[in-house]
Amino acid sequence: MSDRLTIALDAMGGDNAPEIVLRGADIARERYPDVRYLIFGDESAIEPLLATLPKLRERAEIRHTTDRITSETKPSAALRTGRQSSMWLAVNAVREGQADAIVSAGNTGALMAVAKFVLRTPKGVDRPAIAGLVPTARGECTMLDLGANLECDTENLVQFAVMGALFSKVVLGVERPSVGLLNVGAEELKGHEVLRSAAGRLRETELPLKFAGFIEGNDIAKGAVDVVVTDGFTGNVALKTAEGTAQLCAGFLKESFRSSVLAMGGYLLARGALRKLRLRLDPRRYNGAVFLGLNGVVVKSHGGSDAYGFGNAVCVAIDMQRNGFMTGMRSEIERLYGGPGPQAEAIAG
Amino acid sequence: MSDRLTIALDAMGGDNAPEIVLRGADIARERYPDVRYLIFGDESAIEPLLATLPKLRERAEIRHTTDRITSETKPSAALRTGRQSSMWLAVNAVREGQADAIVSAGNTGALMAVAKFVLRTPKGVDRPAIAGLVPTARGECTMLDLGANLECDTENLVQFAVMGALFSKVVLGVERPSVGLLNVGAEELKGHEVLRSAAGRLRETELPLKFAGFIEGNDIAKGAVDVVVTDGFTGNVALKTAEGTAQLCAGFLKESFRSSVLAMGGYLLARGALRKLRLRLDPRRYNGAVFLGLNGVVVKSHGGSDAYGFGNAVCVAIDMQRNGFMTGMRSEIERLYGGPGPQAEAIAG
Repeated sequence: MSDRLTIALDAMGGDNAPEIVLRGADIARERYPDVRYLIFGDESAIEPLLATLPKLRERAEIRHTTDRITSETKPSAALRTGRQSSMWLAVNAVREGQADAIVSAGNTGALMAVAKFVLRTPKGVDRPAIAGLVPTARGECTMLDLGANLECDTENLVQFAVMGALFSKVVLGVERPSVGLLNVGAEELKGHEVLRSAAGRLRETELPLKFAGFIEGNDIAKGAVDVVVTDGFTGNVALKTAEGTAQLCAGFLKESFRSSVLAMGGYLLARGALRKLRLRLDPRRYNGAVFLGLNGVVVKSHGGSDAYGFGNAVCVAIDMQRNGFMTGMRSEIERLYGGPGPQAEAIAG
Repeated sequence: MSDRLTIALDAMGGDNAPEIVLRGADIARERYPDVRYLIFGDESAIEPLLATLPKLRERAEIRHTTDRITSETKPSAALRTGRQSSMWLAVNAVREGQADAIVSAGNTGALMAVAKFVLRTPKGVDRPAIAGLVPTARGECTMLDLGANLECDTENLVQFAVMGALFSKVVLGVERPSVGLLNVGAEELKGHEVLRSAAGRLRETELPLKFAGFIEGNDIAKGAVDVVVTDGFTGNVALKTAEGTAQLCAGFLKESFRSSVLAMGGYLLARGALRKLRLRLDPRRYNGAVFLGLNGVVVKSHGGSDAYGFGNAVCVAIDMQRNGFMTGMRSEIERLYGGPGPQAEAIAG
């Protein structure tokens, strides 16, 4: 793959497409000026916007289609009828080697279905997972699966651990990420059989991660581990519960400041510091769920994201590709299953 | 049952037993002066403390035992060796009709095991659940199961819905509680088969609750429903994740106020309002998980609770008993399974 990366963009996905897609790509361009873009969607909507972003225009190519997958499209319907949609064509560009990664703010379920169908999983990966970042007292952690697989077996969880740790290393720069399995208690005998056997596998296998055993829900925000591994049902509930609680706290805080003249005065004095607090919890910083375990880098931006958030998602895709996520994943999964690759020997030596 | 209620107290459970148990009961006594207490534990530790609480002393009787179940005792070990422990004897007092309810700040797993073994479930209830209160934008909601049953079948969830709604009515005074099933999406086709069939049952059955369908993690803190029903694994993770996130927000807020002199000045002005905010999120207000679905009222206070929190847990036990939780549960479960009781006819008429 050349140094010059190309990112495929689904320009028609998300609440404010194509505008935030293009403005987001333009923000990413400031950080990575060499990257090129293949933009899939309705040319008549894209072209006028792109004309206002001349530096992006130079690095972009439009692939026209008027078909789109909406937020209401069921995954099964996307698979049946979505072949000419901007989302499908963008994913297909990765499969055909025209692009190195795809970013979409469209329907998550449809994107996962299309990405699985078009890109498939590499050898040794049974199922792809959705991973995301969660703010913690120590920065942020990677959590997966966030909803692609409601039920998981032992090997699914072990593979998620490997892929999540690699993501943490490649995108967040954590050298030897610690990984915890989300459970209802830290003791070895707690929880489902699948969790206990996954813990056994992670303890025994030689992997480029620190296995920290079981963690509980409150350990996530503490930053007890760099990577939280769980099934898609639990991960989805935990992530949304954390988001809901953070919003509740923010709402309560706002009400408190409005509750008296003194409190309002206090707010005025403290507002610089409080603005920083808001930034720290800003969901846009944590935008960009990634689909791990496919033959290609797929990043999903929030549907309601703004350009700043979409730009972050594009940067995550670029970081994954530049820092070798795909080759790393293939070699680590091979090592996990005792493949005779040079990595396995290097570890043994 | 007489108007004069008797509460059995496990005086040796929790981090600061027996002190917070006795001081907590004394706080509950102020609200309910007629209630009597059977206090199980080491007389030599209890008697001197009780001497300093003369009004409680008048209403209390000590049942001496030096055996206790510690926070490290496994549930299975509690069942094998705990028969003379303060916890077991207190639970047994309910079974024998000497007390109307039992409150303990001891080991949750052991308390559930002992309570299940000694009290059993009433006819029609397959498994007891742990229910607790969670703060929301609209006040608080009841959530269950919080960890008694890691896996649940359809009927478990339906029974939890009935019992949770009754608890919400009896203790929180919600007239016709709305009940949501925690899932990864609101659409009817989302989630596990067990959830979909439980939703079907709750939609069809005539029950004294409003079934609100599926809710997602972020709906909990919004206060979208009065009662959140889920399996014990998911409920435990969601509750602890919410607690962890609230602590994270509080920590970030504290740091913000310390980040500059201006911010510190702002804090001084706003601190009255912020104190109210702290109270609103005070976990002691939400103390007292209850075990629903047993032949007796069992309330579990946090192990690290203070006297105020323990007193709240005692008041929950009193409220449940005074407001007829036990008789209500039996009749509603009977109605659920088509028992020919007068309630079923009253509804049909």
